[in-house]
Amino acid sequence: MTETAISSCRAFVFDAYGTLFDVGSAIKRCQESLGGEAEKLSDLWRRKQLEYSWLRSLMGDFTDFWNVTGDALDYALAAVGKNDPVLRSKLMETYLSLDTFPEVVQTLQTLKDNGHKLAILSNGARHMLISAAKSSGIFSLFDEILCVDELRTYKPHPSVYQLATDKLELEAGEISFQSSNGWDIAGAGHFGFKTAWINRAALPVERLSHKADVILKGLDELLPLAASTKTA
Amino acid sequence: MTETAISSCRAFVFDAYGTLFDVGSAIKRCQESLGGEAEKLSDLWRRKQLEYSWLRSLMGDFTDFWNVTGDALDYALAAVGKNDPVLRSKLMETYLSLDTFPEVVQTLQTLKDNGHKLAILSNGARHMLISAAKSSGIFSLFDEILCVDELRTYKPHPSVYQLATDKLELEAGEISFQSSNGWDIAGAGHFGFKTAWINRAALPVERLSHKADVILKGLDELLPLAASTKTA
Repeated sequence: MTETAISSCRAFVFDAYGTLFDVGSAIKRCQESLGGEAEKLSDLWRRKQLEYSWLRSLMGDFTDFWNVTGDALDYALAAVGKNDPVLRSKLMETYLSLDTFPEVVQTLQTLKDNGHKLAILSNGARHMLISAAKSSGIFSLFDEILCVDELRTYKPHPSVYQLATDKLELEAGEISFQSSNGWDIAGAGHFGFKTAWINRAALPVERLSHKADVILKGLDELLPLAASTKTA
Repeated sequence: MTETAISSCRAFVFDAYGTLFDVGSAIKRCQESLGGEAEKLSDLWRRKQLEYSWLRSLMGDFTDFWNVTGDALDYALAAVGKNDPVLRSKLMETYLSLDTFPEVVQTLQTLKDNGHKLAILSNGARHMLISAAKSSGIFSLFDEILCVDELRTYKPHPSVYQLATDKLELEAGEISFQSSNGWDIAGAGHFGFKTAWINRAALPVERLSHKADVILKGLDELLPLAASTKTA
């Protein structure tokens, strides 16, 4: 691990879903309607959401992340035998007001107070990201909210990570990228970012060619690493 | 469903893993060493194998399918807490002699006897495909074994499906493509093939933009559809 890699960075860029926002919180709000199938539905919804984003990028058949999220939910609902348009609608709505993980707001606020430049870089459609960020009170903390709507491809395609270097006017190696998704860390590292893998679930390391510079149990563990780069 | 789409085709092109070859047979041969973790290991191995093929294609970081299969197995073994180099080695070896599904050999033989042109189009590395096809006695039935080694990207990228139109000198719409993988059917349909989804496991339809022309429970159900195109 190379913690010094993070301390020399000029901006902190965050993945959104699973990193800032707890995608499992959508299902938790509808737990009563789902009973014993809640965990399977939640896992499959997320898995298909990712798969469809990669597959559509590869086959050159883009549709935005709101549609991808709805398609993935339709698959997951079919797999658990629930044909319930009201439940579907309620679950989709929750995606616009997902909970943040407990340490997120304070960590972002502290980084901001210390003068760091902050951005979101996500596969999410712009309206989804703005809605979730406003709903959780973190919208005003970011200098940029970067999304793939115009690119029409998804992470880990290098052009998505390049959005951050272009918009923030920084070299890849000057950016510290935080994600809870191991595959996203591999893609970001391959592009040239410094990377911090937020591995809350203690998952095995993804066997892709780029490893994280640091592995953290929560976003708050970023603060001591960032402290030495105070720019304010 | 448009069964007539299949009957007008001039070649039958088959996905390999999961379609001709039962990838679960690798684990079955090592069941004793795995006990209660066998199913989880098998599912995760296959899932990560697919994920890594898509992710590496998207990020532009190709490695061949033998390496991808080994990387996926390493992840799966770590996830079930097995650090056993002998078991790893044995599981990888089984990939070179996978069982075919029960109806595969007879179906291919009948298609061949009736004068149809047959090919494999797979993400697999050439040496893996040749080994598994020879081991199961189906090698000599194919006119072409098409793999991605030179392309350095994986399905569902359109360039992989184009290998078949180029090598068989046919238009996309003259090819019937068979796969048990719903995402592969979507990619092949997007490219322009006629498609038969071999849905042995009765899985939900993938929510991608191209649906299969026909859905079959086994490869043998292809024979009545192919009968009317006898070319010998």
